[in-house]
Amino acid sequence: MASSEKCLGKGSTPPGPVSNGRIRLYSMRFCPFAQRTRLVLHAKGIKHDTININLKDKPDWFLEKNPMGLVPVLETPAGEVIYESPITCDYLDDVYTDKKLIPADPFERAQQKMLLENFSKVTPYFYKIPMGRRSGEDISKLEEELKEKLNQLNEKLAGKKTKFFAGDAITMIDYMIWPWFERMESLGLKHCMAGSPELKKWTEHMLGDPTIKATMVDSETYKGFYKTYTEGKPDYDYGL
Amino acid sequence: MASSEKCLGKGSTPPGPVSNGRIRLYSMRFCPFAQRTRLVLHAKGIKHDTININLKDKPDWFLEKNPMGLVPVLETPAGEVIYESPITCDYLDDVYTDKKLIPADPFERAQQKMLLENFSKVTPYFYKIPMGRRSGEDISKLEEELKEKLNQLNEKLAGKKTKFFAGDAITMIDYMIWPWFERMESLGLKHCMAGSPELKKWTEHMLGDPTIKATMVDSETYKGFYKTYTEGKPDYDYGL
Repeated sequence: MASSEKCLGKGSTPPGPVSNGRIRLYSMRFCPFAQRTRLVLHAKGIKHDTININLKDKPDWFLEKNPMGLVPVLETPAGEVIYESPITCDYLDDVYTDKKLIPADPFERAQQKMLLENFSKVTPYFYKIPMGRRSGEDISKLEEELKEKLNQLNEKLAGKKTKFFAGDAITMIDYMIWPWFERMESLGLKHCMAGSPELKKWTEHMLGDPTIKATMVDSETYKGFYKTYTEGKPDYDYGL
Repeated sequence: MASSEKCLGKGSTPPGPVSNGRIRLYSMRFCPFAQRTRLVLHAKGIKHDTININLKDKPDWFLEKNPMGLVPVLETPAGEVIYESPITCDYLDDVYTDKKLIPADPFERAQQKMLLENFSKVTPYFYKIPMGRRSGEDISKLEEELKEKLNQLNEKLAGKKTKFFAGDAITMIDYMIWPWFERMESLGLKHCMAGSPELKKWTEHMLGDPTIKATMVDSETYKGFYKTYTEGKPDYDYGL
């Protein structure tokens, strides 16, 4: 489950310093990038607090912490601030050395980073296709492109013959790309997985992971949120 | 000095496997991204070979190694391939543990990555301003934006009161951003540094570094290459 705290917007009281022994995540319940950090926090069992941010009406105190105004942002008791989702996740894996998610082997590490870099060209389709569909555009070309890109991921898995992207146990890269697959159905993109059987199997394996199970949001809730989002009035507290 | 080997293009003989105990860099003598990797290879004293690629007429065997067709690319004797400049540099620092360039402290590491992420919004100006100037566009707004972004870097240094971005010794982040500063003069952008005295001092400190000294390309050579580049006929072997 995502944090069930309502989001804070402009004019809200700035939160105090972070308690010792904990870390704070600034998040938004439906943001796939912030979900990466939430998955890592959960998988590693890190004690943390979550503050959800109203991204349409950001508090000034939040913009002071991260002038780019994006989530996720981590804050430590010492007031250190870390942003950009892969950077927050690497930071957590560096600081909390239990249950390491990033492989120790340098080439494995490099492979995960290259896969993540390639995946950064996939995520825009999860925005462009639903938005195009809503405005009645021809989205067939975009869908073909997404299918092709998912197929490349499928080939990668087929070549590895493992349950997850770096072996038979989940590692960082699986969590990094998961949030978009969790949204496949609610965004009406499941048919784009048709030619990617290995990726489908990976999805099933992911659904068996305790962290995924504990943090997942159901498709109906996503659909409800996305409706408010595409109408230009995102309800970040949808379902609370 | 950059490698003085002429570049290989379409139809060239594919190079054999990489010799044991060495690593191979696929590069282009004037590419600032590939220069990052060249700086790290030099600074760490890593035994390596360089193959320069004709980026306008890429060999098929090169596209097989990196389908994105970009340099830098690293190749190991085991045939492992690593691309994307920050990934290649991190890989080298992971594998070759002498003269570590990435700080050990997790927050320092995160800070370097955030700075690099911010800097990725600076590098496009080094292309857009000269190109706009050549085609007679009004580039004053772009120049103001670049000045503002350089000023943010200046503020970061001013706050630290150190010679380099992470202390009084060079670390990875200094090498990651250096290639664009080396090209400031040849691209006619030096005046954009006017409001950034700390950054100017940093440039002077960088020029004293043995690796920078040994690998630098003079402004006249850059100018000669950029002339061929902006004319649409890049001479990757310019000056050889």
